[in-house]
Amino acid sequence: MTFESLWHDLAPIGRSATSGGYFRQPWASAELELRAWFREEAAARDLAVEEDPFGNLVAWWGDPSAGDAVLTGSHLDSVLDGGAYDGPLGVVSALAAVDLMRERGVQPQRPLGVGVFVEEEGSRFGLACLGSRLATGGTRWDDVRGLADRDGVRLGDVVTGGAPTPWLDQVGLFVELHVEQGRALVDLEVPVGVASGIWPHGRWRYDVTGRADHAGTTRMEDRADPMLTYAMTALAANKEARMSGQRATFGRIEVAPNGTNAVPSRVTAWLDARAESDAALGELVAAVEKQAAEQAASDGTRLEVTAESVTGAVGFDAGLAAAIGEGLPVLPTQAGHDAGILQAAGIPSAMLFVRNPTGVSHSPEELAETADCLAGVEALAGALEGLLR
Amino acid sequence: MTFESLWHDLAPIGRSATSGGYFRQPWASAELELRAWFREEAAARDLAVEEDPFGNLVAWWGDPSAGDAVLTGSHLDSVLDGGAYDGPLGVVSALAAVDLMRERGVQPQRPLGVGVFVEEEGSRFGLACLGSRLATGGTRWDDVRGLADRDGVRLGDVVTGGAPTPWLDQVGLFVELHVEQGRALVDLEVPVGVASGIWPHGRWRYDVTGRADHAGTTRMEDRADPMLTYAMTALAANKEARMSGQRATFGRIEVAPNGTNAVPSRVTAWLDARAESDAALGELVAAVEKQAAEQAASDGTRLEVTAESVTGAVGFDAGLAAAIGEGLPVLPTQAGHDAGILQAAGIPSAMLFVRNPTGVSHSPEELAETADCLAGVEALAGALEGLLR
Repeated sequence: MTFESLWHDLAPIGRSATSGGYFRQPWASAELELRAWFREEAAARDLAVEEDPFGNLVAWWGDPSAGDAVLTGSHLDSVLDGGAYDGPLGVVSALAAVDLMRERGVQPQRPLGVGVFVEEEGSRFGLACLGSRLATGGTRWDDVRGLADRDGVRLGDVVTGGAPTPWLDQVGLFVELHVEQGRALVDLEVPVGVASGIWPHGRWRYDVTGRADHAGTTRMEDRADPMLTYAMTALAANKEARMSGQRATFGRIEVAPNGTNAVPSRVTAWLDARAESDAALGELVAAVEKQAAEQAASDGTRLEVTAESVTGAVGFDAGLAAAIGEGLPVLPTQAGHDAGILQAAGIPSAMLFVRNPTGVSHSPEELAETADCLAGVEALAGALEGLLR
Repeated sequence: MTFESLWHDLAPIGRSATSGGYFRQPWASAELELRAWFREEAAARDLAVEEDPFGNLVAWWGDPSAGDAVLTGSHLDSVLDGGAYDGPLGVVSALAAVDLMRERGVQPQRPLGVGVFVEEEGSRFGLACLGSRLATGGTRWDDVRGLADRDGVRLGDVVTGGAPTPWLDQVGLFVELHVEQGRALVDLEVPVGVASGIWPHGRWRYDVTGRADHAGTTRMEDRADPMLTYAMTALAANKEARMSGQRATFGRIEVAPNGTNAVPSRVTAWLDARAESDAALGELVAAVEKQAAEQAASDGTRLEVTAESVTGAVGFDAGLAAAIGEGLPVLPTQAGHDAGILQAAGIPSAMLFVRNPTGVSHSPEELAETADCLAGVEALAGALEGLLR
């Protein structure tokens, strides 16, 4: 079967020998190898590849200039030390679905594109779904070309950039297959589901400024320690999310000067928050910020909160979901996806989820059984066959 | 006056244009410049400079082979983004005191050494007072030659190392002048004081391991988030120290993978703790570790605590302190110093403190007024004059 052979080829690329996790940051060596792999697999299938000025790739079966194309695919980049499935499963399944449809003699009446969107995780330049945001024009190139990675390299240094992606004008709808990032399908005991929509979510940067001091000689009561403000905020965010059934995480922090025997002068940390509705997200974020501000006042530190990216609730196209998901359970997702960006840009979109027995994602433990992946390819091929008629 | 001219020469070396703080890590460019400066100033005074295999420097007035020498001086390195005074004040004051004694026609009956101990702050290789520990043999070269800095460079790559410092055998006593790192002299309204001893202190590394997860899709109750264990521990350490009148600080943290949309897999953080007695330090450290372990159990994370360096209480030589500190107030200090290492190694040692109006140290805000610095030079010269008779 095509799927297993493709999956086997991808497995070693960007994998850490110590953790078993993946480091596939955009425009770094592993991800460049994945892009080359995609071009080769497309060429082997006589699919013509186009790249836009942001690095998004599409491989066409049929002539896209006919318009009203069906787009499928996902992304190849990973979070730092991420799993194998988040992204690549959708790309590999799309190629395998093309093979399956051809074996069955499907003659598409519309063009089909297999797409690879770049920097979906935002792990390098900090803005999730960067490729699809630029492709659709939801984010303007001039607003992000100056974004710097952790080494100070700017987005404008690695891609040429420019106007939104012309080939998206030929796309009539988008179907993205993705590994499930929770346990709903495990509980339901089915291998494949269809998405109803994406929770609203965003990233907020917390800059807490205090006063550097000697860790030994400065009395506790004389300090203005931003680490305390941060620590209390991280706990408050967790508690607020637990109580309200939403999600809040502080997973990234930078401390200055980050020395063992110095009270820090500054702590910068990032809040990732997600909720079932725009109103609930607003309440959650406000509650965390309020407690952080109170703690800062009590610690004698100064707090500044900056919204780095906020994405409202997305409901996927109900007609499309019904067409591709007949008989499948319907699930919401708390993760952002390129399908959400395209849907918000007016391109009817839908998603298929493949069961993940661990429920874990963004981690080396992320998993999908081969039998479930094959069920995913089957579901995707069936959906695409219907759409291409 | 010599002091002001010397101080003016040092001021720009290793200073950050943005913060105004100092980055004088051992064997990096700024610190190498400081070493060259010290050799030049010694040469200008006809003081013969010796360097030991660890990079500790001494400049001799008189022939050290006569033995029973008086040693003064301090260190030139700083913490990351530190102040101007911590260390250099003792070296500059020693040179200025030599000039002052010569102006007064002092004829030393014993050799006088002006010493510069290396890596006093432990900001590069993580072990405070590294130079004096190696010089006295309190720390063995073979036990630390493999220590790596944040870039993976090893101590053995930057210095040759070897047996303890031979010229310390010629030293009969040590007097270190240092900026005060608290507000005691401010409260007492006097410019100079003498030290009674050093609080016991140490560094403990907290490694908290959890499970990486997607920050959006993983329910709060399904997580094993080491950031929560860390945050609670940082707050517990602060509370324990506040309640007991001791000191506890988490100023350094490293997070993996440190991504905005991933629950961390691991948080490593360093506890700096100090207390008025060995027993009180033991109680403080045990109380923090106990609460961290309880929190880890509740968070589903795994905690490992490693003592990286622990220094017991040091009482300075009472006779020496009385001889050099007549009429001066007597203060304890919560900071480690090379004088504490030498005292512990059996070399009678004492310290003079110069008032710091901010009370702040290890920070760009660290300060000593020029008039107080001159009072410090005067006190040091007077003390040395008495000892050199």
